[in-house]
Amino acid sequence: MEQASVRDASAPARVAPAGEGISQEELALAARNHGLPMEALRYEVTPPGLHYVLVHYDIPATGEEDWKLAVRGLVRTPLSLDPAALRGLPAVTHRVTMECAGNGRALLSPRPVSQPWLAEAVGTADWTGVPLRLVLAAAGVRPEAVEAVFTGADHGVERGVEQDYRRSLPVATATGEDSGVLLAYAMNGLPLPPQHGYPLRLVVPGWYGMAHVKWLREITLVDAPYTGFQQSVAYRYRRADEASDAPGEPVTRIAPRALMEPPGFPDFMSRTRIVRPGPVRLRGRAWSGYGAVVRVEVSGDGGRSWTAAEVEPRGPHPWAWQAWTCGWEAAPGRHTLTVRATDATGRGQPLEQPWTWGGFGNNLVQRVPVLCC
Amino acid sequence: MEQASVRDASAPARVAPAGEGISQEELALAARNHGLPMEALRYEVTPPGLHYVLVHYDIPATGEEDWKLAVRGLVRTPLSLDPAALRGLPAVTHRVTMECAGNGRALLSPRPVSQPWLAEAVGTADWTGVPLRLVLAAAGVRPEAVEAVFTGADHGVERGVEQDYRRSLPVATATGEDSGVLLAYAMNGLPLPPQHGYPLRLVVPGWYGMAHVKWLREITLVDAPYTGFQQSVAYRYRRADEASDAPGEPVTRIAPRALMEPPGFPDFMSRTRIVRPGPVRLRGRAWSGYGAVVRVEVSGDGGRSWTAAEVEPRGPHPWAWQAWTCGWEAAPGRHTLTVRATDATGRGQPLEQPWTWGGFGNNLVQRVPVLCC
Repeated sequence: MEQASVRDASAPARVAPAGEGISQEELALAARNHGLPMEALRYEVTPPGLHYVLVHYDIPATGEEDWKLAVRGLVRTPLSLDPAALRGLPAVTHRVTMECAGNGRALLSPRPVSQPWLAEAVGTADWTGVPLRLVLAAAGVRPEAVEAVFTGADHGVERGVEQDYRRSLPVATATGEDSGVLLAYAMNGLPLPPQHGYPLRLVVPGWYGMAHVKWLREITLVDAPYTGFQQSVAYRYRRADEASDAPGEPVTRIAPRALMEPPGFPDFMSRTRIVRPGPVRLRGRAWSGYGAVVRVEVSGDGGRSWTAAEVEPRGPHPWAWQAWTCGWEAAPGRHTLTVRATDATGRGQPLEQPWTWGGFGNNLVQRVPVLCC
Repeated sequence: MEQASVRDASAPARVAPAGEGISQEELALAARNHGLPMEALRYEVTPPGLHYVLVHYDIPATGEEDWKLAVRGLVRTPLSLDPAALRGLPAVTHRVTMECAGNGRALLSPRPVSQPWLAEAVGTADWTGVPLRLVLAAAGVRPEAVEAVFTGADHGVERGVEQDYRRSLPVATATGEDSGVLLAYAMNGLPLPPQHGYPLRLVVPGWYGMAHVKWLREITLVDAPYTGFQQSVAYRYRRADEASDAPGEPVTRIAPRALMEPPGFPDFMSRTRIVRPGPVRLRGRAWSGYGAVVRVEVSGDGGRSWTAAEVEPRGPHPWAWQAWTCGWEAAPGRHTLTVRATDATGRGQPLEQPWTWGGFGNNLVQRVPVLCC
């Protein structure tokens, strides 16, 4: 037998044809990772166990005792910061809505085979930590640096490539006053839970989850754009597979989305909602990584007609979702409720699936089946 | 059109033939509910967001302000207890391993269609609250009472039956000094998270999760065995569907199980574990609702030969899992690691699936694919 290699643990990326059920491998990811139960949209700040979680490999066994954050590469003063040193720096708290770039993937047809999210991979938390720009200022970023590369303690194999989870940000984003990038050590006022990156994670407001590197142990300033797996192979908007010539656009900011707290009560298996006839107050949240949500519309007839919802203005938390409400008159029979958001840049949500090879950024409108009786 | 009814929201119970992929309905349940990521077996007490969660309907919007527990039916003094009254009673803390009765369901062939657990629906927490027997003693259970019926605030439809989630326990179990049944208001020292039953839940040590009624709002003492949906239709060990004459045995205590913290590191999609050649220290946890685990065995050859693991004796927490460790010499190539537990009553784990119609109590041995290279 030829010598085994880590490449033997991986199969090539694959797209499942229409009608092919979810595989046991996809299910194993869905059982580990989890979304926001839609009724938890009622909480402006998501309790940690309800916030979506996506872990590429294993949750690493990180403790505070022997943990250090290294800042190195193109800096004047390399740093090694322990948790006490970080907590000694000025802290801020940002309320941030975070969403997985793969949210909506399992609704696509054909279906990219990966973590099979429907529409629930989202959550909002209060993240407390040190502004990244303060730590980078203390280290002194050299002028030739163009990107900061962030390395997590999670280690695994993905499509044959053994790796620590690693992503980069442009120096302008990493050091910008307005970008709000945080080295966060607390979530909703408590130390990070293990699955959210204990003891330290990156938080990049407005960006999809892949940018918010968890279990962060190293920041390296480099003089050329980082081209590792999670930057150049995964997390690209492509129309064809990774062997094609087209590199695709990088996945960055969160596309607009509105979600509805499903009205009434559910059937266990079908999750169809039961509502009584009469007026129903629909509620939910909407967000965009590009700007404030300025319009939310609801349709009770599958998208033929739309009613404007009342949208809470963007308040003191510019990176958090906004609440919306809308009246609806329920008449006996079956209905499909649909909701869509539009942001200040004019970006909206499609009624037809925006298909990509990796299944990223699918912000297709949510559809909620309701039985009124 | 005939008038719609809640029955129209439900399809009949179904078993998916071998080879049929997981449906989008099953996936929707897997995305809401979640298991214990296997590496989290490293924690003796599971952090709340990693503890398995199964919610039949929606997490209800329960607050403490207007919340009361009613104790009624065949009691001398009906009670209405608010959270402050409960916290004024003597409190105890029990460390309890909890497992969903449907754990292992999605490994069955053919597959009962419901929440599609693989093997991860488990967790261990420190539950703090008032012994149920103290509250029942204060109410004064009348001699003709045979069962206590527990009603949660979660409401929904299941196979056409609209219901509050409701289960019963025999009076002897509910009032027994040794049964350890708790009215719990704290998990791991903090108020219950919403998904674990805030503000109050039942904890029934040694029993599968369906007995631990969440969002508990009423206890009713009755003079005949309760025959509601969750007691007599669901949560029965049956060989055929619910329309058959055989009622099946009720699902009660947790069958023995050992799980392994998967060694090495994973491939993202296949979850195959990569280990380096040489000695590997395998670790995990084992439990049974019938008594202490007295033996854990590990097989590296698919169950042909077995090695005894070292099992931590049952310590001060009689209802919590026990740690085990075992050495294994990894040689290059592919392996399947298997582990099984035996408890003090002689109950063990099967190598072939114990199939039932509802997919309950499947404690088939865990199999962990490993690639050594």
